[in-house]
Amino acid sequence: MPDADAYAAARTRLDALVKPVGALGRLEDLAAWLSAAHGVVPPRPLDDVRVVIFAGDHGVRNVSAYPREVTAAMVRVFLAGKSGVNVLARQVGARVRVLDIAVDDDLDGVPEAVRAHKIRRGSGAIDTADALAPGEAERAYAAGRAVADEEVDAGADLVIPGDMGIGNTTVAAALVAACLDLPAEEVVGTGTGIDPAGRAHKVDVVTAALTRSAGRIADPFSLLTTLGSACAAATAGFLVQAAARGVPVLLDGVFSGAAALVAHRIEPAAARWWLAGHRSAEPSHSLALDALGLTPVLDLGLRLGEGSGAVQAVPTLRAARAVLAEMGLLADLG
Amino acid sequence: MPDADAYAAARTRLDALVKPVGALGRLEDLAAWLSAAHGVVPPRPLDDVRVVIFAGDHGVRNVSAYPREVTAAMVRVFLAGKSGVNVLARQVGARVRVLDIAVDDDLDGVPEAVRAHKIRRGSGAIDTADALAPGEAERAYAAGRAVADEEVDAGADLVIPGDMGIGNTTVAAALVAACLDLPAEEVVGTGTGIDPAGRAHKVDVVTAALTRSAGRIADPFSLLTTLGSACAAATAGFLVQAAARGVPVLLDGVFSGAAALVAHRIEPAAARWWLAGHRSAEPSHSLALDALGLTPVLDLGLRLGEGSGAVQAVPTLRAARAVLAEMGLLADLG
Repeated sequence: MPDADAYAAARTRLDALVKPVGALGRLEDLAAWLSAAHGVVPPRPLDDVRVVIFAGDHGVRNVSAYPREVTAAMVRVFLAGKSGVNVLARQVGARVRVLDIAVDDDLDGVPEAVRAHKIRRGSGAIDTADALAPGEAERAYAAGRAVADEEVDAGADLVIPGDMGIGNTTVAAALVAACLDLPAEEVVGTGTGIDPAGRAHKVDVVTAALTRSAGRIADPFSLLTTLGSACAAATAGFLVQAAARGVPVLLDGVFSGAAALVAHRIEPAAARWWLAGHRSAEPSHSLALDALGLTPVLDLGLRLGEGSGAVQAVPTLRAARAVLAEMGLLADLG
Repeated sequence: MPDADAYAAARTRLDALVKPVGALGRLEDLAAWLSAAHGVVPPRPLDDVRVVIFAGDHGVRNVSAYPREVTAAMVRVFLAGKSGVNVLARQVGARVRVLDIAVDDDLDGVPEAVRAHKIRRGSGAIDTADALAPGEAERAYAAGRAVADEEVDAGADLVIPGDMGIGNTTVAAALVAACLDLPAEEVVGTGTGIDPAGRAHKVDVVTAALTRSAGRIADPFSLLTTLGSACAAATAGFLVQAAARGVPVLLDGVFSGAAALVAHRIEPAAARWWLAGHRSAEPSHSLALDALGLTPVLDLGLRLGEGSGAVQAVPTLRAARAVLAEMGLLADLG
């Protein structure tokens, strides 16, 4: 559990810094939160930040502006360091790791380590079939936990879940709708940029998925099996295990938000280790964050995924820590 | 003027990057804006960022949670590198320079360079007297322009106006009310953290100042003389001259927002070089930004001043530039 004494000590110190009480707003909240997470004031530097991208296809059709093949191609872009998140992570000195969890491609020539946690080639089309076969949700969840352990053992001070997969905002919308008991119409957005007809089809897909899965969504692993995907299950495991190891997590957009809702059902206490990096333009994201009681650090109208929004909040977390570590005291003003 | 061709070329390149069109939201707007400002795609790196803090007292009494003497003490804190903006600027590699424009203290022992542009000891209490003597607004404005020239000549890629001065949110509120023809009640906030009775007094002070200055606010230098302060005039000059030199400005909070409103009256075209770094918790700030057509990059509930909010937006600007400079192209996906 985060350390309540460290939290209180951070608040006391923040009030003593050479500024009006509360004048640094959200930075003060983040500084106290990080102190509680690390159990010390000031918290440790966030030097080692790691993004893990869970890549996979989601079988749903005609819900994206891009074809399925883009997922595999993007895995190669990540490895070449040319994606949005690669560029943005370099800006803050964060590492990016990509994992093929369920890409519908053999990814010939891609390093074996990228495929080490592969569950299947593409998850099922949730409007017509279960996303996963029996046992796969548990395997993917375990893979996500194992990956979190690897990153923490390697020295991660902060982890960020990223996502890449054509169809993933559809799956995210379905998971959010199921968790919050909302109709498809309220959770479906335009994803990569579909037109009104495309969005109407996406609403139909999510509605069909919710109808098909009725009665099988109360258990989180059954939910992941019927309405989720291998990537959603792996991300949920990653979020839970990072928390279990006491490492803060900066959630990204709609996909990690949906996975966080499911992970919260599996392990409610894990949410105390999560921060929301940014607010996505997708409607299901704000709904998920509200349900989790999380307020995004940034609101830049992003809808790229990949972890690209969360990495941009890293400077704000480092700034919050620096305030506690480096500012002078009111008492020294004389 | 910003370069319309570079802006268009940036938009074309942004649409060709390996991401859905528009998926990077505000980053794309900022990338295009910077391209226009620099006249080249990608824009130049924002390596050399400079904060200039215009420090001075404002004669109004009992409008702050802190006594007048804090302004002089804070000048020494800036020089010691222990203030909020010092800490936050170090996080982004920005330099901080503090200038005594109108501190009501001799600042014995402080380096001569800090006092080189001093206009007077404290501006006048605007509820009972003019803020400045005839000619002082023009002198302070010229000082601000000279400082902008110094920073640009020294290599600034981006400049940030900071402020320090007990009473400055009162003066800012009065300037915003005068520029936008609003009653005091709509522009006055709680500043450093005053109670409801303190805020009611602050509303009375601003109302008295607006009444006293009636008929003398149409000309911007008359406005600065009657209702402003030496710091407000210096900041306005700084904003106008940075723009004249083609260097982008990242506005900070309520004080630079109010100075920007006045500067915009003096030189409307200058506003094309200004971005809003963050949204302050003070109500007059949002009113000023709306009037200038500026949307803040960050919204972290800050109300410290000093340039502390704007410096935190620097990573976002650098990220916007990096996207244009480093991301791969959709065409390379194959």
